[in-house]
Amino acid sequence: MKILFIGDIFASPGRRIVAEHLQQIISDEHIDLAIANAENSAGGFGVTPNVAQELFSFGLDVLTTGNHVWDKREVYDYLNREPRLLRPGNYAASLPGTGLYMGKARNGVQYAVMNLQGRVHLPPIECPFRKADELLASIPADVKVKFLDFHAEVTSEKIALGWYLDGRITGMVGTHTHIPTGDARVLPKGTAYQTDCGMTGPYDSVIGVEKDTVIQRFLTQLPMRFEAAKNMVELHAVIITLDETTGRATAIQPYAISEE
Amino acid sequence: MKILFIGDIFASPGRRIVAEHLQQIISDEHIDLAIANAENSAGGFGVTPNVAQELFSFGLDVLTTGNHVWDKREVYDYLNREPRLLRPGNYAASLPGTGLYMGKARNGVQYAVMNLQGRVHLPPIECPFRKADELLASIPADVKVKFLDFHAEVTSEKIALGWYLDGRITGMVGTHTHIPTGDARVLPKGTAYQTDCGMTGPYDSVIGVEKDTVIQRFLTQLPMRFEAAKNMVELHAVIITLDETTGRATAIQPYAISEE
Amino acid sequence: MKILFIGDIFASPGRRIVAEHLQQIISDEHIDLAIANAENSAGGFGVTPNVAQELFSFGLDVLTTGNHVWDKREVYDYLNREPRLLRPGNYAASLPGTGLYMGKARNGVQYAVMNLQGRVHLPPIECPFRKADELLASIPADVKVKFLDFHAEVTSEKIALGWYLDGRITGMVGTHTHIPTGDARVLPKGTAYQTDCGMTGPYDSVIGVEKDTVIQRFLTQLPMRFEAAKNMVELHAVIITLDETTGRATAIQPYAISEE
Amino acid sequence: MKILFIGDIFASPGRRIVAEHLQQIISDEHIDLAIANAENSAGGFGVTPNVAQELFSFGLDVLTTGNHVWDKREVYDYLNREPRLLRPGNYAASLPGTGLYMGKARNGVQYAVMNLQGRVHLPPIECPFRKADELLASIPADVKVKFLDFHAEVTSEKIALGWYLDGRITGMVGTHTHIPTGDARVLPKGTAYQTDCGMTGPYDSVIGVEKDTVIQRFLTQLPMRFEAAKNMVELHAVIITLDETTGRATAIQPYAISEE
Ligand SMILES: [Fe+2]
Ligand SMILES: [Fe+2]
Ligand SMILES: [Fe+2]
Ligand SMILES: [Fe+2]
Ligand SMILES: [Fe+2]
Ligand SMILES: [Fe+2]
Ligand SMILES: [Fe+2]
Ligand SMILES: [Fe+2]
Repeated sequence: MKILFIGDIFASPGRRIVAEHLQQIISDEHIDLAIANAENSAGGFGVTPNVAQELFSFGLDVLTTGNHVWDKREVYDYLNREPRLLRPGNYAASLPGTGLYMGKARNGVQYAVMNLQGRVHLPPIECPFRKADELLASIPADVKVKFLDFHAEVTSEKIALGWYLDGRITGMVGTHTHIPTGDARVLPKGTAYQTDCGMTGPYDSVIGVEKDTVIQRFLTQLPMRFEAAKNMVELHAVIITLDETTGRATAIQPYAISEE
Repeated sequence: MKILFIGDIFASPGRRIVAEHLQQIISDEHIDLAIANAENSAGGFGVTPNVAQELFSFGLDVLTTGNHVWDKREVYDYLNREPRLLRPGNYAASLPGTGLYMGKARNGVQYAVMNLQGRVHLPPIECPFRKADELLASIPADVKVKFLDFHAEVTSEKIALGWYLDGRITGMVGTHTHIPTGDARVLPKGTAYQTDCGMTGPYDSVIGVEKDTVIQRFLTQLPMRFEAAKNMVELHAVIITLDETTGRATAIQPYAISEE
Repeated sequence: MKILFIGDIFASPGRRIVAEHLQQIISDEHIDLAIANAENSAGGFGVTPNVAQELFSFGLDVLTTGNHVWDKREVYDYLNREPRLLRPGNYAASLPGTGLYMGKARNGVQYAVMNLQGRVHLPPIECPFRKADELLASIPADVKVKFLDFHAEVTSEKIALGWYLDGRITGMVGTHTHIPTGDARVLPKGTAYQTDCGMTGPYDSVIGVEKDTVIQRFLTQLPMRFEAAKNMVELHAVIITLDETTGRATAIQPYAISEE
Repeated sequence: MKILFIGDIFASPGRRIVAEHLQQIISDEHIDLAIANAENSAGGFGVTPNVAQELFSFGLDVLTTGNHVWDKREVYDYLNREPRLLRPGNYAASLPGTGLYMGKARNGVQYAVMNLQGRVHLPPIECPFRKADELLASIPADVKVKFLDFHAEVTSEKIALGWYLDGRITGMVGTHTHIPTGDARVLPKGTAYQTDCGMTGPYDSVIGVEKDTVIQRFLTQLPMRFEAAKNMVELHAVIITLDETTGRATAIQPYAISEE
């Protein structure tokens, strides 16, 4: 069985490249479950109900997010109505949405998708390590396939959580830095791991944003209004192959499409 | 002409894998200039004169560093005596050492190696963008081959500096996160770029450190004494191919050795 | 009824000025309950069992702490044995010690002392607002006198918690910045409040530390070993007057002793 | 000779209390030079040309600012046209405005007002210690009266700069935390010092902002739109008495007006 995970879809260029290629990837690669991080899918900042529905219509089964999920107020209600759109589960329980979705893949296998967020150089929400324990405890024993999008800034927090969960989930892929890492591997106890999936969007940019503005911000340290960039669009994903009887991963492979 | 850059050499496992493979890589890959980041080469924290000399004895031509260069006091004097050991050039001018070394490669071509450090989630030293301008202005016009190790935490600062320097240097490779990124490319104006080279050291770890201790630190938020890990040793490097008459890069390739 | 709270006692100069004046203050000011923050009482960094016992022997009834409580390993066991030595209650429950002590004051009135820590520019521990709710829920209804030391960096987090608890506790005094604030007031619903109590220790210093070293650190951004300063010793405290039948504060007054 | 410095004027409540009291204070206290921090004077976030002109019309001689000075774009040009409106001098030289103004006080004595910003938990601009040296070197020797508003977050950076400048300037008062500190003193070599002046604005708030919103932000960690609060308006200032023949301070006194 195979899971496809697509990294932070950034603005309309990111949505377009997904629209153009997703069905082909699913078919060519025999994907049973297609997940994507949508925290930047609406203009680069957040996600709206319309944008989420557009992404589901392309064939994505579950959407994860991260710190930017709160950027657009109109999504707050929708988070309560649409269980397939996750927000990091370790934000306060009083907030809309949850960090866990369980469903059935195209091949009929039950799966759980989780979404958590790091706390190093990010808001001090609940402990992602303990929240991972808690989410896992709430998943029925017969659900073997468990995937986590861990949205975090620093490599140490991501790898530490990877080791913490090794053997307990099928795969963990990081998001948020918008640059793919080259460290895909199946950890010794069977959890597929990659520190960051990388952004799906315009790479003629600084992590999606029009690059001259960001350079000016570094030079002046002034607040700036950021605009989404447009060119050098790439799709970055990982494909995890797993044994659905045990939930253990057998392979993890980065998967990228570059338009130029 | 080809430049080899090896990412943060971590403790004795990192030094050993370099010792065992460097001469072979230089010979197989026709390397003309071999550079490595040594900020973690002494027990994981800093570099000593003895350790630097050991690294030079393996065949490394220039050593760069980062925030950990100040960990061992015995290296302060040595930084003034050994121009081939760099520290980030945008620390205060009153500190020992510099961020620029110029020499002649094995093929007789003159080169400049630069070392700068980011300021996002790192100490507020001088502006790396302006310091890059300043260092470049101090390099004679006939020195075409210019390499920069930009030691920084966040992807945005690294890519922004890459774009800022595109066409003005041969290559920029990032260090500090200890995880290789999968984004090696030659930018449109001829600068080879990779966000992070990745650590050369034990990957059965959290960025080099014994992993159970780091997990405990995340769970408790307590100060902890870190020990270097030992297993799953890997060497991570990039090889940049360039035209020495113009200094422009023509290719950049990640290069890795895994002991298992 | 009156509560005396003494701010961060710093190293031996801080302990000495408390030793010399505490009994006099208790007697002159008719203090019924004497509390002090001891996080810097052992050489400026942490607290040891011996130092805590010395402080109790001066006449202090309860000791609170903060982020530095974990500096000395020998205090970890002691935190479990000595309930009058608190650590911020919103560190992980698995750690030694707690953030709540209940006892009887000199006048026979029952009291609760709480200790919490902020998360802005400090480790991302549990939410201090929710932990305050939780601690308050665990205090029997007949305990009316409730004091909180909120150890935090930024003014916004401190004042926000003050407003959050107004009318629910007798008094909240902040610690950690080592500078007394001039904003003592009884909030509208009866909670005495001061953003920071200020350090009890050497003010010929940068927040207790030998000042030339700290200036060098700001100039160089290098790691430095800090030594406790010695001169211009001052004691900073607040005295809260309250109605023990309701637990409401009627007055709050800064109290300082300067040796020169 | 006497200098009045008024802390961060916050929104219209802050401007109003200054309008109502400034002339009286100047006359009662025999003030020769009246300075105020205006970074929050326009709705709590930044300052506009109109608001600055209104503040000058009340009788303020020089306005300092801080990180919020860049909030309103319409002030950028004005910073170049109005030398009496300062911005922290250690932002990039390419930005509008400067951090130094020299003029003649009501009593005919020449003075210099400086404005710098800290870098701990604030943007990594130029070193405030070195920039202070540089500004001081640019002031003619016959200008003896030198005042600095150091806009910074943490107490350590503020006190360290105070000690660094002791005997070299008449007075340094901190701003930015919006809470007055109770540590006014003349340092041993003659520099008047107070860590923070405190906000001039609504104290029924969290540092000027409507308090329920801020409490919600701490509980949820979500981005929030802040509105200026309105009630419990207070004016916080310090008055420095000095010998104009030497520029040394002889006294520093907090000065506050509370409307209720
Ligand atoms: Fe993202
Ligand atoms: Fe993100
Ligand atoms: Fe490193
Ligand atoms: Fe580093
Ligand atoms: Fe302290
Ligand atoms: Fe502290
Ligand atoms: Fe302010
Ligand atoms: Fe400010």
